Amino acid sequence: MPSAELTRTDAVTVKRKRERADYRRDSANAILDEALVAHVGIAVDGQPFVIPMAFGRDGDRLILHGSNASRLLRSLGDGQPVCVAVTLLDGVVLARSQFHTSMDYRSVVIVGVPRLLDGVDEKRRAMEALVEHVAPGRADEARPATDAELRQIVAVEIPIDTASVKARTDGVVDELEDLSLPIWAGLVPVRTEFGAPVAAPDLRDGIALPPSVAPYTRP
Amino acid sequence: MPSAELTRTDAVTVKRKRERADYRRDSANAILDEALVAHVGIAVDGQPFVIPMAFGRDGDRLILHGSNASRLLRSLGDGQPVCVAVTLLDGVVLARSQFHTSMDYRSVVIVGVPRLLDGVDEKRRAMEALVEHVAPGRADEARPATDAELRQIVAVEIPIDTASVKARTDGVVDELEDLSLPIWAGLVPVRTEFGAPVAAPDLRDGIALPPSVAPYTRP
Repeated sequence: MPSAELTRTDAVTVKRKRERADYRRDSANAILDEALVAHVGIAVDGQPFVIPMAFGRDGDRLILHGSNASRLLRSLGDGQPVCVAVTLLDGVVLARSQFHTSMDYRSVVIVGVPRLLDGVDEKRRAMEALVEHVAPGRADEARPATDAELRQIVAVEIPIDTASVKARTDGVVDELEDLSLPIWAGLVPVRTEFGAPVAAPDLRDGIALPPSVAPYTRP
Repeated sequence: MPSAELTRTDAVTVKRKRERADYRRDSANAILDEALVAHVGIAVDGQPFVIPMAFGRDGDRLILHGSNASRLLRSLGDGQPVCVAVTLLDGVVLARSQFHTSMDYRSVVIVGVPRLLDGVDEKRRAMEALVEHVAPGRADEARPATDAELRQIVAVEIPIDTASVKARTDGVVDELEDLSLPIWAGLVPVRTEFGAPVAAPDLRDGIALPPSVAPYTRP
């Protein structure tokens, strides 16, 4: 069993607005499971790169993958530290003052050294975690990856361990002396919405929407 | 007038799936203007950090800001290169095979060395760009920042110049031999939805929704 508490190194400790920070694994997992995109940071000779990537979660491991033809993705396996940020935007905060214009959000930041997943068995499990993350139940419906396909990908795991959660849930926070101004203030809720599934144009007749897709929802 | 073409250095040239790449300023601006969150990568002694941030666009400048009490934000002004990624998720691609499970998206990646904005005049203009990005027209409605407030922030500009756009808009792409499988395949459209604005609990009576908020939409 992984610890209920994340590991709080200097790199992930929230220094500002500490009241927004949280170091519980459950909090991190909830955000990771709801989100679809991770932004992965790597540094190559001092130049940072940020790559948007799909990801999976397999217990206390974050899974990333990509083509082994990609230099950046291959570099994920070279022993260098990375940083993964996953962000959910919850609201646009329109304060009375420009200064307090803000956003409500929840985010997770993970730092760690990825471990390259070797061999088709490890990669197959990683692929399943990625597919399950996108649509729970989908791994059992879709055709499993072949060994040849798995050899085309780079997959890495990053422990969900040295990590922190930061959330702003405050809505409007204005200066006391601004409250009497004749300026509207409030929150515009933001959410990710999923439209009705659109079948592939070349889908064979008579194939119903499977459980993983209908209804398509997220936590 | 900035060039219609972005500057294509090795750092931002899309090496894989080149057909998904685009180096036009208009394409980058359209994505930047629609998105609300940027993921900013910096490297500190070889450790990358990725920070979700609000941002603004002022012509061909990307504007970032934050509290000057934040060590990471202050470090944006220390002459080191950064990478900014802005991503819009458009769809979840459920292919017949696990291997081709994917997402449709549009993204911009910008690299550059941020320039610290000095003095209240530069910072005030930056603040306005940030507020306008969140809600066009809002800068004129909200109380402008005071000099004292502006002294509390770090603001930087990054040229929207060394940058690239990458988009996947393919929907389902399966192997030919998989098309006859009795497996559903299709696209789940994804979009960011904005709920009805919720007035601050302490809003004075009789203040109508201003033009920047009603209706709240994005490009």
